[in-house]
Amino acid sequence: MRFTTLIKHPADWMKGSGPHSDVVMTSRVRLARNLRGFSFPGYSAERQRVELLELARPCVESLPEMTDGYSEEYTGLTKIRKQVLVERHLVSREHAARAAGCAVVVDRKQSLSIMINEEDHFRIQGIRAGLNLRSAYALVDKADTALESMLPYAYDDRLGYLTACPTNLGTGMRASVMLHLPSLVLSDQINPVIKAVGKIGLAVRGLYGEGTEALGNLFQISNQHTLGEKEGEIIAQIEKVIERVVSSEMNARQKLLEDSPTMLQDQVGRAFAILRYAHILTSKEALNLLSLLRLGADMDLIPNCDRSLLDMLLLEIQPAHLQLSAERELSPEERDARRAEITRARLQMLTGPSNVSASNSTSEEKPSDSNDE
Amino acid sequence: MRFTTLIKHPADWMKGSGPHSDVVMTSRVRLARNLRGFSFPGYSAERQRVELLELARPCVESLPEMTDGYSEEYTGLTKIRKQVLVERHLVSREHAARAAGCAVVVDRKQSLSIMINEEDHFRIQGIRAGLNLRSAYALVDKADTALESMLPYAYDDRLGYLTACPTNLGTGMRASVMLHLPSLVLSDQINPVIKAVGKIGLAVRGLYGEGTEALGNLFQISNQHTLGEKEGEIIAQIEKVIERVVSSEMNARQKLLEDSPTMLQDQVGRAFAILRYAHILTSKEALNLLSLLRLGADMDLIPNCDRSLLDMLLLEIQPAHLQLSAERELSPEERDARRAEITRARLQMLTGPSNVSASNSTSEEKPSDSNDE
Repeated sequence: MRFTTLIKHPADWMKGSGPHSDVVMTSRVRLARNLRGFSFPGYSAERQRVELLELARPCVESLPEMTDGYSEEYTGLTKIRKQVLVERHLVSREHAARAAGCAVVVDRKQSLSIMINEEDHFRIQGIRAGLNLRSAYALVDKADTALESMLPYAYDDRLGYLTACPTNLGTGMRASVMLHLPSLVLSDQINPVIKAVGKIGLAVRGLYGEGTEALGNLFQISNQHTLGEKEGEIIAQIEKVIERVVSSEMNARQKLLEDSPTMLQDQVGRAFAILRYAHILTSKEALNLLSLLRLGADMDLIPNCDRSLLDMLLLEIQPAHLQLSAERELSPEERDARRAEITRARLQMLTGPSNVSASNSTSEEKPSDSNDE
Repeated sequence: MRFTTLIKHPADWMKGSGPHSDVVMTSRVRLARNLRGFSFPGYSAERQRVELLELARPCVESLPEMTDGYSEEYTGLTKIRKQVLVERHLVSREHAARAAGCAVVVDRKQSLSIMINEEDHFRIQGIRAGLNLRSAYALVDKADTALESMLPYAYDDRLGYLTACPTNLGTGMRASVMLHLPSLVLSDQINPVIKAVGKIGLAVRGLYGEGTEALGNLFQISNQHTLGEKEGEIIAQIEKVIERVVSSEMNARQKLLEDSPTMLQDQVGRAFAILRYAHILTSKEALNLLSLLRLGADMDLIPNCDRSLLDMLLLEIQPAHLQLSAERELSPEERDARRAEITRARLQMLTGPSNVSASNSTSEEKPSDSNDE
């Protein structure tokens, strides 16, 4: 599969939906694996990395999941194309910054991606819609087992899988869930939730992982520990926590609808309106407004607003995606104009929030008894 | 004519248009007049003011212009109704704050209004659409001449008409023009213009006269001097100045269209969008957004947007008009919700700025030569 074919299609997780899809966007599991007899990528010369790539890549491409998939060495990719893969969550920012000896192999559904020579020799990542870590784990576990039968993994009976960074030692697994929590943010309850999640040993991060801001009310929650626990236990613990966060968000939505319907309609209405009619949109504003529009869609305040339209748009308006579709580098100003243009076009078919007529006044705030002067 | 009938109809100046209507909203002329033998209203007891009212009101009502007009003593008006008259520019804020002995008489076209016992015994005001001070002056001059034939004016051969405040002495005339100057504000050129106008002895004020803010990019320019010059000379001087301000604004509009089309479309698009979809609108935000929408209508960026629709809406969303239509006092929060509701309903038939398709990219910023990395 060519790069352009891959990018033209939405990933499987964008089209489908999973458990708690109105709050949980994706569940991801990644495994860090290394081969015995090779230095970790950060400690090896280019020649050694290329040697490992030549050995490992055919094995990865031979996995049944990778039939008709996409496989590319980084030497053949422009900066913009690599950045597009980052925006799709198919490769990490760190991996995209590398070149010779690095490659990525992705299945045609964009559910499974395997980075070669990231921080570790392999990063095997599975992604699913909604809260579905078990299914994402099953995906990577199968690929991992198959690779282990072909290649000599660096494994220690006492420590488990050996990794470049000790924080990944043991299972080498990181399970993470991307959550959309607009109501907890709108009602100022997000900080206690983040604090509580942190206390039980899970990490909370922004849209693009470590050190990034929580734009668009999107939060990633993931495990920090990889040693001394079984994969299934870690996943079960995270899912339990996520289910509590999901119900906090759902309660907050219900409370907003009951206590502040006008504020909610105002926020959702303005978000729709600006996205539909602006001619300049920064990435930050667009993400935050799309978050409110998604909230409106989830709460049936925006008729006929398909969630996958919003997910696709969220990708399309990222800087590298914009530049890819323009087929050239764009200045920040050009990006903001093009982002607005694409957003206007994609939302053109939406009718917007249903309108209340001026003759029926805003009944929710009107006391039954009038108090004329 | 009853109060409700008066208010239900737009004033003549709102329906029609005059010279430079795309920048000049209205031209107003008012004359201050007093009767010989009566103390100025601020120095007289209630009994004396009532006595003057009983003498003067029948004369005012008998003017041919006032046939089928509206005439009301303030003792019969609620606070909200008086405030509605202020918002319509038919009476002054100061006059509305008074009660016994005060009245207003308005012609059915709402072009001529005469306040009795304002700061002076009479304030005779004429209002016209566009830049038309001569016509507004002709209107008040005719009424003034007719009243002078019926009542003994306080007039001094050397000083001219005597007035309560010496700043009105002489002609007793103030001519003022309400200007809509969004492009001078958007392009940061408004302050030098205001300064220049001030230097030649004219005053620049906000929407509701002295001491008010220039909301909605609306500015009132009026004469400060009433002594030693003839009415016609004062008016000719102001009109000359206004014509120069008008061409500055028109140049600024042209320049915005040429140099910053995306910014302009963004501002107009967002203004339309928020007015069309918000559920909470403060008075200040609404005025500022309506100003941008009017600019869009004037520059043909918004199809089928009738200027008189915007003028009527500008009145309807003022606090007292909102409370009048709700038939009760409203809290600020209720007003903001109702203002948004009425605005949404009135703009419902507008299609909004025409949309550019995403396939034709924003050509204005695109250099002809692409500079791919």
